[in-house]
Amino acid sequence: MSATNMVPQEEIVQAEGLRTFCQKVFQKLGVPAEDAAITADVLVAANLRGVDSHGVARLRRYVNGIRDGMMIPTPETRIVCETPTTALIDAGAGLGQPVSYRAMQKAIKKALDMGAGFVTVRNSNHYGIAGYYAMMALEHDCIGISMTNAAVLVVPTFGRDAMLGTNPIAVAAPAGRERPFVLDMATSTVTRGKLEVYERLEKPLPLGWATDENGTPTTDASLVLENFRQRAGGGLLPLGGAGELMGGHKGYGLALLVDVLCAVLSGAAYADLVYPKTPDGKPLPSKIGHFFGALRVDAFRPVEEFKETMDDLQRRLKDAPKAEGQTRIYIHGEKEYEEAERRAREGIPLNPKVAADLRAIAEELEVEYDLE
Amino acid sequence: MSATNMVPQEEIVQAEGLRTFCQKVFQKLGVPAEDAAITADVLVAANLRGVDSHGVARLRRYVNGIRDGMMIPTPETRIVCETPTTALIDAGAGLGQPVSYRAMQKAIKKALDMGAGFVTVRNSNHYGIAGYYAMMALEHDCIGISMTNAAVLVVPTFGRDAMLGTNPIAVAAPAGRERPFVLDMATSTVTRGKLEVYERLEKPLPLGWATDENGTPTTDASLVLENFRQRAGGGLLPLGGAGELMGGHKGYGLALLVDVLCAVLSGAAYADLVYPKTPDGKPLPSKIGHFFGALRVDAFRPVEEFKETMDDLQRRLKDAPKAEGQTRIYIHGEKEYEEAERRAREGIPLNPKVAADLRAIAEELEVEYDLE
Repeated sequence: MSATNMVPQEEIVQAEGLRTFCQKVFQKLGVPAEDAAITADVLVAANLRGVDSHGVARLRRYVNGIRDGMMIPTPETRIVCETPTTALIDAGAGLGQPVSYRAMQKAIKKALDMGAGFVTVRNSNHYGIAGYYAMMALEHDCIGISMTNAAVLVVPTFGRDAMLGTNPIAVAAPAGRERPFVLDMATSTVTRGKLEVYERLEKPLPLGWATDENGTPTTDASLVLENFRQRAGGGLLPLGGAGELMGGHKGYGLALLVDVLCAVLSGAAYADLVYPKTPDGKPLPSKIGHFFGALRVDAFRPVEEFKETMDDLQRRLKDAPKAEGQTRIYIHGEKEYEEAERRAREGIPLNPKVAADLRAIAEELEVEYDLE
Repeated sequence: MSATNMVPQEEIVQAEGLRTFCQKVFQKLGVPAEDAAITADVLVAANLRGVDSHGVARLRRYVNGIRDGMMIPTPETRIVCETPTTALIDAGAGLGQPVSYRAMQKAIKKALDMGAGFVTVRNSNHYGIAGYYAMMALEHDCIGISMTNAAVLVVPTFGRDAMLGTNPIAVAAPAGRERPFVLDMATSTVTRGKLEVYERLEKPLPLGWATDENGTPTTDASLVLENFRQRAGGGLLPLGGAGELMGGHKGYGLALLVDVLCAVLSGAAYADLVYPKTPDGKPLPSKIGHFFGALRVDAFRPVEEFKETMDDLQRRLKDAPKAEGQTRIYIHGEKEYEEAERRAREGIPLNPKVAADLRAIAEELEVEYDLE
């Protein structure tokens, strides 16, 4: 958070103001108040949790997406199929967040009624951080699951071109005195945003993050990012890296699993069908899919027993001996909970470029920007 | 399959004979006929699919396990909790395979009735290949899920000692003309068996597979295996390797997720509680847990549409351009299906040591060994 004359100062803003601003922006673009509030909350939750790549830095993409007709502000959302434990929802090319919020609510309701609930969504758009929806299950003493497929950036094992998204998997499980377990992971080794950070710092990429246009691992972040822009081939590597030696086929398999549950099960787009464009290059609705699930803990075991056991498992891991040079073993979600508490207290630091972008959006849409 | 005078010849046996032999062995040890048949089928299925590490090479461990009282041949299996979509089963320290087979049947039945079914199992033992149970869902046009926790061999990110099993995740989804998608992966980079292969070949391990007793990545397979025997620290690394740079925390998170679903949700053992011993070193029941799930495809989308889409996704991946030097992109399960067809036709090659071990078991238990 330290600033010098060399580095433009970060702006510190409060979550509440940021949320209100985003909501107003969405409403100005024709998004109904409740949908705008949900979308704003998902974005700011990412900033609070320290996942700035998925926070308000993306507001511009949503603004442009709605303006370009890629995202419909008032979509016709439709339940295509429903049973007591399952549902398929067509999102009508609306924003990903409102439909995902309601799909997860539906999955939780089914889990509370029946023990298990699963809802898959098609014809949707980027939904923000996967973990947001998984975590909605926690207050209901359910285990929550959330996945989405995404724009194609990841090469399959032995492939040359990107055929899969970074396809994240999120699972949240409640605990007692300890924090909930919140796994929220892209199934690629890293995301595109990480390459952009390395490009800015002019650092070579570790081998195993990405490939060049021949499908060969490369250390050149600029090359990979330029190849994305040119659709020239290559891309991010699945978790486990290139080939099978370090388990790259496993990361590829997890990404493919996400496509099966989010797209094949729902009728959403997958592989090169995701993020289509018109012949003259105008973006069309991304038609991506999501998958949400909830399991009610006490449909298996009393909640108190489950939570005590979660605490014990976490304590055993945290108290275990550390590798040489290390001082701490983390549980998934722990860093993000700590960051969220800190940022709720001290505010959210906005990158100067992001802050400038928000101001530009405010000006364009004539929405008040008053976050200081 | 080529043999020279230098290398002891592999024995080629037929699946049917191997299955019958294993069944007889289990029955001789007091396992009821049906349970023996299930267990034999799971073991031989591993050999057919080319996963020899989980096939009859493990028969000795089961024989000793039953003899030592670690596995109960006639367990009192008990349904602890059941709802229309969920169940918790106590396996009574029996063999892992029969209870897992029936737990998966139950999950499938619930999915056929209700759309989704999930069954968790505690107080169980090693259940063989995870994929076997996930694949049981395929003929019912369900998506199948199978996970198990296991003996502690994997170090958490930044940890020194093994605190997690190789905790596999298997998911199977049906297809139409193409083969089903069958992901069956340990959440560690590699399994212990792979280290044993490298030790035999005196090959250095790739960095990222395992750590020494200080938690530092090592290339020395013998050291890691000896440390396992001495419980001296170190172990296998999660998928993604050491630290967070290559995503090791993701593999660790997946392993922990498996513990949550298999052990915390069921009341099974986890972390250092798995595979307990008496004060004088005698093995006690492992008390591990499993998790099974099934989702009925047509509770979301017509089966034919789903299968056509699975086929299309697979074809797009397989037909995609290959990385330089590569000729084929695989779908998960494809290699194993091809191997199973070949071995069903040409027989299963048994490593001479394994064949000798089976003969020794036959002699000890006075069971006929007639597989040639």
